[in-house]
Amino acid sequence: MCLGKGGCCLECVKRQLFRVGDDWYFLFFLGLIMALISFAMDFTVSRVSNAHKWLYQELGDHLLLKYLSWTMYPVALSAFSTGFSQSITPHSGGSGIPELKTILTGVMLEEYLAIKNFGAKVGPFVHLSSMIAAYLGKIRMSVVGEYENKSKQTEMLVAAAAVGVATVFGAPISGVLFSIEVMSSHFAVRDYWRGFFSATCGAFMFRLLAVFNSEQETITALFKTNFKIDFPFDLPETFFFMVLGGICGVLSCAYLFCQRWLLGYVRRNMITAKLLATNKPIYSSLVALLLASITFPPSLGHFMASRLSMKEHLTSLFDNQTWGLLSQNASLARPPQVDPENLWIEWWEPRITIYGSLALFLVMKFWMLILATTMPMPAGYFMPLFVYGAAIGRLVGEAVAFLFPHGIQSDGVVNTITPGGYALAGAAAFSGSVTHTLSTALLAFEVTGQIAHILPVILAVLVANAIAQKFQPSFYDGTIIVKKLPYLPRIRSRHIGSYRVTTDQFMNTHFAVLAKGASFEEILSVVTSTDDLEYPIVESTESLMLVGMVRRAELIRYLQAHDEAKLSPQEPGEKPRSNGTLGDDCTIEPITLQLSPRTSLHQAHTLFELLSMQRVFVTSLGRLVGAISRREMKKAIEDLANPKTLK
Amino acid sequence: MCLGKGGCCLECVKRQLFRVGDDWYFLFFLGLIMALISFAMDFTVSRVSNAHKWLYQELGDHLLLKYLSWTMYPVALSAFSTGFSQSITPHSGGSGIPELKTILTGVMLEEYLAIKNFGAKVGPFVHLSSMIAAYLGKIRMSVVGEYENKSKQTEMLVAAAAVGVATVFGAPISGVLFSIEVMSSHFAVRDYWRGFFSATCGAFMFRLLAVFNSEQETITALFKTNFKIDFPFDLPETFFFMVLGGICGVLSCAYLFCQRWLLGYVRRNMITAKLLATNKPIYSSLVALLLASITFPPSLGHFMASRLSMKEHLTSLFDNQTWGLLSQNASLARPPQVDPENLWIEWWEPRITIYGSLALFLVMKFWMLILATTMPMPAGYFMPLFVYGAAIGRLVGEAVAFLFPHGIQSDGVVNTITPGGYALAGAAAFSGSVTHTLSTALLAFEVTGQIAHILPVILAVLVANAIAQKFQPSFYDGTIIVKKLPYLPRIRSRHIGSYRVTTDQFMNTHFAVLAKGASFEEILSVVTSTDDLEYPIVESTESLMLVGMVRRAELIRYLQAHDEAKLSPQEPGEKPRSNGTLGDDCTIEPITLQLSPRTSLHQAHTLFELLSMQRVFVTSLGRLVGAISRREMKKAIEDLANPKTLK
Repeated sequence: MCLGKGGCCLECVKRQLFRVGDDWYFLFFLGLIMALISFAMDFTVSRVSNAHKWLYQELGDHLLLKYLSWTMYPVALSAFSTGFSQSITPHSGGSGIPELKTILTGVMLEEYLAIKNFGAKVGPFVHLSSMIAAYLGKIRMSVVGEYENKSKQTEMLVAAAAVGVATVFGAPISGVLFSIEVMSSHFAVRDYWRGFFSATCGAFMFRLLAVFNSEQETITALFKTNFKIDFPFDLPETFFFMVLGGICGVLSCAYLFCQRWLLGYVRRNMITAKLLATNKPIYSSLVALLLASITFPPSLGHFMASRLSMKEHLTSLFDNQTWGLLSQNASLARPPQVDPENLWIEWWEPRITIYGSLALFLVMKFWMLILATTMPMPAGYFMPLFVYGAAIGRLVGEAVAFLFPHGIQSDGVVNTITPGGYALAGAAAFSGSVTHTLSTALLAFEVTGQIAHILPVILAVLVANAIAQKFQPSFYDGTIIVKKLPYLPRIRSRHIGSYRVTTDQFMNTHFAVLAKGASFEEILSVVTSTDDLEYPIVESTESLMLVGMVRRAELIRYLQAHDEAKLSPQEPGEKPRSNGTLGDDCTIEPITLQLSPRTSLHQAHTLFELLSMQRVFVTSLGRLVGAISRREMKKAIEDLANPKTLK
Repeated sequence: MCLGKGGCCLECVKRQLFRVGDDWYFLFFLGLIMALISFAMDFTVSRVSNAHKWLYQELGDHLLLKYLSWTMYPVALSAFSTGFSQSITPHSGGSGIPELKTILTGVMLEEYLAIKNFGAKVGPFVHLSSMIAAYLGKIRMSVVGEYENKSKQTEMLVAAAAVGVATVFGAPISGVLFSIEVMSSHFAVRDYWRGFFSATCGAFMFRLLAVFNSEQETITALFKTNFKIDFPFDLPETFFFMVLGGICGVLSCAYLFCQRWLLGYVRRNMITAKLLATNKPIYSSLVALLLASITFPPSLGHFMASRLSMKEHLTSLFDNQTWGLLSQNASLARPPQVDPENLWIEWWEPRITIYGSLALFLVMKFWMLILATTMPMPAGYFMPLFVYGAAIGRLVGEAVAFLFPHGIQSDGVVNTITPGGYALAGAAAFSGSVTHTLSTALLAFEVTGQIAHILPVILAVLVANAIAQKFQPSFYDGTIIVKKLPYLPRIRSRHIGSYRVTTDQFMNTHFAVLAKGASFEEILSVVTSTDDLEYPIVESTESLMLVGMVRRAELIRYLQAHDEAKLSPQEPGEKPRSNGTLGDDCTIEPITLQLSPRTSLHQAHTLFELLSMQRVFVTSLGRLVGAISRREMKKAIEDLANPKTLK
């Protein structure tokens, strides 16, 4: 089909462009871009925080100046961040995961993925990454032509979420799994490969940049640990790991409950609600001031290792040594500056010992974390949760090491306890139970580069998750509930009766229906009395045979056209107008899927989740008998706990 | 509702039994049982193989006796295994994964999961585990009552497959991921949790038993490695890892192609086909004799490290030392018995060096592995593939170490190359590309207990998978194709046009339809001329309004009833018989799901995969216009490569 040289060239260029549209290129660039952004951000943050440290140091002993430099820095940054992001878009608060989850269930939140929000969202990588994916998708569509569609977009968004998590931690495998667990209830193995590929490109590039920047000699784990591989833990210790899992589970329930309550409270409370409505930056800076005052090192911060950055917190908590032993041996004094070789010493305070420091850290950070999540600024909350969990684990581990200074087994060989392993398990269990995910276990191994504690960590994560999932919705679901985003709960397996529920027991039978031959007046009355986005069209109101559906916009167009027609008298010579029924003048769209009254709740639930449906019609022998929207689904699932309310 | 003390007790017992029916108990026991079986099997195998070794050793220098003891052992075992398993069930050949995959798409292979097959299947853990799950499911159903259903069964089978993989390797995370990748194209996050839980119970129990049996001091990895953690690999080495991935990908394509060809050939070839049909044990023993003769240590086996068991092969290939260096330094002689501390020496043969040994191993094992898969006996094929890949990786790694004896980076610091890391990557890449999975990367880390090589291993797996997936169906899909099991191919993303294909372009419009008022003769003619399992029922043959469907069995019952009625004359006083149309006398089942002609191919594909559908009807405005079965779906997907054949 080659029409001379020009035709060939065109053909060739076209083929090349089609290749540009290939998913793999797309995913490769997505990973690359995210790695560059992540690296640039890490670089900036480390420079800014170094400047802060330097300033604080240089001020010497002047307490007021020190206090001002310590607090004003975060206050100014959070006020700026809040103001700047709010000036671009009101959607930019939080991590963006709840909104993305909603989008993936098929509800398009307008403008949420627009690239102009990009500048507003330096911080939460998942949202950032999905915006870039949406933008790249648009570019591709304009280059390749009209084959980008909804299912493709969903695939790419899942991959983007994976890349977001993966680049933050440089952890491709758990990044993909985490995004899957958090984002969706079902997923295609195909998406998992996409995510894997893109996340690997991203993680690889991220680590490569670190090498080129001479931070590291080669590509290794982010928080390298150095646990004893030959004998990481003793068999009876699994019991303590499970106890740790239980503690993390209970604490995460408390955390989730308080967090949801506070999120609601600041919206109800007169003062805060007013502040949040009119002057978000002031609210943010007040909260930042309070939090910074508490962590001010000469005050309470002295007991909470607050001179350490988040990364240093994690590195110190995963330390291979036993702090309890270290603190007994030496005459210790905290150095004037943080010593990177002896980070643990920041936790050592003779008056309250390391146990006291850790406990105080846990108590204070509990409400500080919750308070921080109410700030209307873009931020990722995963990392603080991970650190908090590590502190829980460290405390438990140090306590176990204190109780059994010579290890647990008694047959001669002394195998001391590694509290760092408990910190690892605690970090995975707490962050996992707050987000209702299991992949945090894997994340813990990927970021530390050691997998020796695999079984106890998984056990702790499982125990913590079992507790948290039984009593509380996840961190992201909680936000969805508080923000009143559309939400389809899952069917719990303990509701044994759920398999017997069929659609006829919960479908909506009272909804607006239009006959094919409906007249102007009938349509007008239906459109004005209801606000559905689409209406089912039936053969006639007697037979109720479903023939299709018509969109509200189409009906309004029809009403407007016929309204004008009525006002203007029919001119002579004009061909006679149609009698103006719906069937003649409106585009009736076919229905791609119908359920029957005997379809089970589980089947309908699967369809809603997988096909991102909003409403589906139920027909019996061709006759329209009901409709099911997400509202009915949700109610039916909630009613499972109380089966008597079902018909 | 407590009717005295007896009623209360009953109520209480009932509640307890319901708790027994709880999924978590079920999954816990599944994991436990599989761990016990796995452990018992490992124990037996190690004892049997020790006895074999001892016998071989004791025979001294008598070559013929040695040969007989070396060959007769596997010959007898495989003949027995084939005969025994075939005597119980003809389904017991192979790993069982292709059949399980088919079952999970909704096709019930009769008797395949019956517990009586259990005895026949010592070896392939996935099939074993799924049989136990099916059996436990039946027990639960009989205890708890009728709430076990198909969707529940699928959930449990997915979990069972995960447990099967997890207990073999003691690797819970990758076990779950592997089973998901291999088994299904979509999966619910809920299933993933189930699998995780059960697999963890299994893996934990498995390792616990090893500790109690004093094989290990504590719960650690199965093939513990000891790579340098501080500097596992150098940046430029990633290039060689990707080359390794490419080599593994190409080799896996060759392997898959040859394997499929040979499986077909032994079925076509006169002699082998006859043997396989009439006397399977003889075929198995002949193959076993050939394979054992080749690995006989005084013959070719000497050059192939054939004195090592499969586990020892893996341990030796993952060795941290560089064999090339070791073999230069010392005056080496192979000890009369395998030295567990110096396994690598089995690969050292002065005449051909270690490179020659590895190359010979790869060449010979290539066709030996393929030949072994044709044996009609139960066996898992994953482990040999993993070892083969490790050998590829070791060879590449040793070659790289030979080419760059002082490491690759040139700035003073000498970081030598770790060929063991290449072996790890090779094992993951080859087994991953043959099975079309990515989770083998994770498996490699879980079984070695070290995650330092994460990025190069993932890169190698991705490259190998990209090549293999482009050119060959996976190992399991290949078996499905050869065994002609029902199979629904996936829609490749490179078929951009696939998003525009709607059901009306490929649906079947010529199929048997019955009117509601069909008479005895009409039904008889339809039933005798077609062999569908179910027939759509329409209002009338003119309107074609779909009202439901009727099963073939129901129609045959109807025909028999009316046949008898015709023969016996109507007795006086008997109430007049119905006029005998289909609508009056047959149970018409409702249709739970209908598509429209505008439903897209992707949507239909998703529905088929997710809801395990066999056939779905297409209606337009209530009128039956077509039907889509797996056959039409398959054809439509195959036609995507050649769009002109579509209407």
